[in-house]
Amino acid sequence: MELYCFGESGNAYKCALALTLTGTPWKPRFVDFFNGETRTEAFREVNEMGEVPVLVDGQNVLTQSGAILLHIVSKTWQLTGNTPFARNEVLRWILWDNHKLSTQIGTVRFLMNFVPADKRPEGVVPFLQGRLKAAYGVLNAHLAQRDWMVGDSVTIADLSCCGYLYYPEPFGFDRKDWPHIDAWLDRIAALPGWKHPYELMPGNPSDRA
Amino acid sequence: MELYCFGESGNAYKCALALTLTGTPWKPRFVDFFNGETRTEAFREVNEMGEVPVLVDGQNVLTQSGAILLHIVSKTWQLTGNTPFARNEVLRWILWDNHKLSTQIGTVRFLMNFVPADKRPEGVVPFLQGRLKAAYGVLNAHLAQRDWMVGDSVTIADLSCCGYLYYPEPFGFDRKDWPHIDAWLDRIAALPGWKHPYELMPGNPSDRA
Repeated sequence: MELYCFGESGNAYKCALALTLTGTPWKPRFVDFFNGETRTEAFREVNEMGEVPVLVDGQNVLTQSGAILLHIVSKTWQLTGNTPFARNEVLRWILWDNHKLSTQIGTVRFLMNFVPADKRPEGVVPFLQGRLKAAYGVLNAHLAQRDWMVGDSVTIADLSCCGYLYYPEPFGFDRKDWPHIDAWLDRIAALPGWKHPYELMPGNPSDRA
Repeated sequence: MELYCFGESGNAYKCALALTLTGTPWKPRFVDFFNGETRTEAFREVNEMGEVPVLVDGQNVLTQSGAILLHIVSKTWQLTGNTPFARNEVLRWILWDNHKLSTQIGTVRFLMNFVPADKRPEGVVPFLQGRLKAAYGVLNAHLAQRDWMVGDSVTIADLSCCGYLYYPEPFGFDRKDWPHIDAWLDRIAALPGWKHPYELMPGNPSDRA
């Protein structure tokens, strides 16, 4: 399988990590986001949404990290939770992540780190950080009572929710403020084969330094 | 089935509409969002995410509109698309909606209509409207070539993406600017049994006037 990705994309990282942890052979196809590749006609032919990740698996071309994660489960029968009602629980946490967590982090992190200070729109970062604080609270409370998001082992719900939380660039999230999230990120990072986003995918901020 | 909802929630509307269009018997359970019900301990017992919709179907308690829509498909075998690869396509458009469309509209509409002018954070509305313009562009371009989001009939992907687009309160979206979205919203509204959110669910802004 081939994954269109770049190191800074937390959404691509979710998929790269799922492929790696399931032992699925894959190779990255670097997308030069910071030089505008996702806005080109050629890329829009691949994904009309103009985003990474895109997973090419033979005739199947999938986009949206959540759909790709579900595809990896269906191919590998791993990261499933394997408990009653796990499927519904996994689905709702992936949707929650897309709705409340990763979207907002992606925007805040981009504005704080990849946009020149004089081009940052006033007021947006603190507003979104306020909303994210509520989301971190929900996640931390959920993890207070369990080791994994769903059931008693790692699932794609964990990989979706953690996608942006290992990045070093500041976006207003300090692991020490959220002890249950902190411990859970350590648990994920201790899984055999785990790698940091900048080790797993090509491209990182130092390329542009 | 019982759906925790209130009229102003576009995410609840997606589910109410899917239940109605599939002929599934359901009743609404009004949630008094504007008086803080979703922030109460009692409601957090129902949904730790503190959000509507919640669907109660016997022993199953589901949250997140996308997971509820998929549950309605699995129960009714309707709104499926029923074409090769439809499932993946439906999934990715529901995820895209959660990621790029409904989240941002929900925030903008809330700030513009349900928050006093002097409490609106500076700069957030125009920034999110800029991002939404890109999302409307993706949706409009997709619909230029087809009547429905996936395949040749209405699916839960349509119901997810249209969830906020029938509301009368201004949020910077004018159907006339997006002719293919406009025609598609007319097609959905022409489906037998279709109802406007304020007809389908209890609670609307006039209750608080």
